[in-house]
Amino acid sequence: MPSISNKGHKMPQSPIRKLVPYAEKAVKEGKNVYYLNIGQPDIKTPEVALNAIKNSTIDILAYSRSEGSETYRKKIANYYSKNNIQIKHNDIIVTTGGSEALLFAFGSIMDSGDEVIIPEPFYANYNGFSIASGVNVVPVISKIENNFALPPIEDFEKLITPKTKAILICNPGNPTGYLYSKEEIKKLAALVKKHDLFLIADEVYREFAYDGISHYSILEEPGLEDYAIVIDSVSKRYSMCGARIGYLVSKNTAIVSTALKFAQARLSPPTLAQIASEAALDTPQSYFTEVIEEYVDRRNTLISELEKIEGVKVAKPNGAFYCIAELPVKNSDDFAQWLLESFSYENETVMVAPAAGFYSSPNMGLNQIRIAYVLKEESLKKAVTIIREALKVYNN
Amino acid sequence: MPSISNKGHKMPQSPIRKLVPYAEKAVKEGKNVYYLNIGQPDIKTPEVALNAIKNSTIDILAYSRSEGSETYRKKIANYYSKNNIQIKHNDIIVTTGGSEALLFAFGSIMDSGDEVIIPEPFYANYNGFSIASGVNVVPVISKIENNFALPPIEDFEKLITPKTKAILICNPGNPTGYLYSKEEIKKLAALVKKHDLFLIADEVYREFAYDGISHYSILEEPGLEDYAIVIDSVSKRYSMCGARIGYLVSKNTAIVSTALKFAQARLSPPTLAQIASEAALDTPQSYFTEVIEEYVDRRNTLISELEKIEGVKVAKPNGAFYCIAELPVKNSDDFAQWLLESFSYENETVMVAPAAGFYSSPNMGLNQIRIAYVLKEESLKKAVTIIREALKVYNN
Repeated sequence: MPSISNKGHKMPQSPIRKLVPYAEKAVKEGKNVYYLNIGQPDIKTPEVALNAIKNSTIDILAYSRSEGSETYRKKIANYYSKNNIQIKHNDIIVTTGGSEALLFAFGSIMDSGDEVIIPEPFYANYNGFSIASGVNVVPVISKIENNFALPPIEDFEKLITPKTKAILICNPGNPTGYLYSKEEIKKLAALVKKHDLFLIADEVYREFAYDGISHYSILEEPGLEDYAIVIDSVSKRYSMCGARIGYLVSKNTAIVSTALKFAQARLSPPTLAQIASEAALDTPQSYFTEVIEEYVDRRNTLISELEKIEGVKVAKPNGAFYCIAELPVKNSDDFAQWLLESFSYENETVMVAPAAGFYSSPNMGLNQIRIAYVLKEESLKKAVTIIREALKVYNN
Repeated sequence: MPSISNKGHKMPQSPIRKLVPYAEKAVKEGKNVYYLNIGQPDIKTPEVALNAIKNSTIDILAYSRSEGSETYRKKIANYYSKNNIQIKHNDIIVTTGGSEALLFAFGSIMDSGDEVIIPEPFYANYNGFSIASGVNVVPVISKIENNFALPPIEDFEKLITPKTKAILICNPGNPTGYLYSKEEIKKLAALVKKHDLFLIADEVYREFAYDGISHYSILEEPGLEDYAIVIDSVSKRYSMCGARIGYLVSKNTAIVSTALKFAQARLSPPTLAQIASEAALDTPQSYFTEVIEEYVDRRNTLISELEKIEGVKVAKPNGAFYCIAELPVKNSDDFAQWLLESFSYENETVMVAPAAGFYSSPNMGLNQIRIAYVLKEESLKKAVTIIREALKVYNN
């Protein structure tokens, strides 16, 4: 029998998926499970987006342009302009989710064996995209003690080699919830210009910035035009994760024309989802105001409840809808599995994401979990109660 | 400024896209253009598929499972069973078009520098997927003289090296329209078993088999379970190219579980398009009967009209909706551009795909074009008349 590739062997299994069979078993046993493990919001998709699909009169579901339809890209450019980002529609390639935008960015700037520096903990699938692209991730450690702020620039510089082609950040961060300040972005901008590297920013959570702090995009930074590549997505912004629509944005025309060749090879992004996504740009501001208020309330509840538990340390997030908590356990992988398999409190339990999967350095984050606050406040409160009670039992 | 990757430099531009600006200019000048260049059928999408979207009651457009929804995969398995292919739903991974299925297959079985042998001319985007995956295409030449039948097995064997991991065929073929016989598939099966290679078959045109010849899938071949990987898609079958739904199918569980890791990294295939594609499986048989009749009529008209032109040689296709024609010109790239830029007949012209882009050997197919017979018979007749008149002028 022919064998699978080394790439295939190295591809990580999703850190969350490993626990799915245990969650399914818990449900079968009659337990109510609070799912705090994934970034699938419970927020409704804007009606204007869903209606656009229902009212569509197309009779041939045809390919769209490889770079996305012109009307849609023009509307996206207009959206960015309202967010202090001045770009033209030709700076945008519509992709199948932010995932594909990142694959196109990696393919356009890196060859097999090249390196990308990423502050860790980071979105676990960056590992998968790197392996699929033949690229090596070089992690630079950020710390829970300062809420996972940007590591010192010297730490980045120590890791730069002739193979280094890019620095990748997620802003605000999944899984950290950290929102980089304008000063931090400026430091990164100086660094990439000094070393002639690309700066890729995954800004899919741009809108989810709290406490009056504005999100500062790398596309706003003067002089960074040739270096900046933004990954974006409609998934979280409009609670339409299943659309699979994202974009790659850059003012560097060589990047866009190269990414376009990758886009042409796969023909087109999904047409129905583009129709919904274009309509979603007409979502009234009140929708976002309500959503942000809801997430701020959830975060406040979650953090204050977690901080009440002895031995739990929490990084306070200013963005996205995740937080990392350090627990008084040795191995959160084991704890998370135990929660599903062997524990219940009032016949309920919790599914969380063990944080080790968000690190590429070995033995990091072993006592941390990521919590996605994608449930209502009342459920979050109950979930934290379960974690509190579970820790009492688990540690005895 | 940091530079783009070698991969990015090597990615080919779509051979069709190069001509798009000339076609747009022709339209601006008031010419009517017959588009025979792309595989976007003019056939209507089944109503049952479009209605499923219109009647959908989802209010959160959420991720689906990475491998596709279970109900959909069960219905796909049932579809295959009706086509003499016995597989289970767990042998299927739903992908974002056949394109993604091929990327997952390449990633699962090949590393950087590995080789895949492909009979040429072949679907041009196989080049792009190979470069994106860091894989080298090794072409084996098939000939217009015998309608692009399978090259002799000795020709394959001469090309096998320790780096060879797979043979890739498209059946029926784009751009050739050639439908491999059961005997040819059996020869390939013996070859891959002898040399321990995977056999990947792109069977997206499976339904488009004419003249009473049945399509024989590599999944029907006994003893090939561990070697066979099928790429499939709803794009052409239901005229829903814009859905971007395909599948990877294999009875080799190591392949499916590896491809699943690639699938998990990109989270999920498009949800709306999956709803439409699942409903499309209920399309009445009369739809397909009509479509096949229509394509057979178109093919017959196209071939007989082309054969009337002196100096034109045509490969007679038994499947798909493409044919390759050899023209009495030195360079069909130049001829195709000239058709759009400098020629018109009764104020009309034609856009065709120069065939050199479907070869990876240099200087092959320079006098060939690919014609997609995706227009009505009357239009095809007019288009061939234009080509006939154009050749008279061009060659003087």
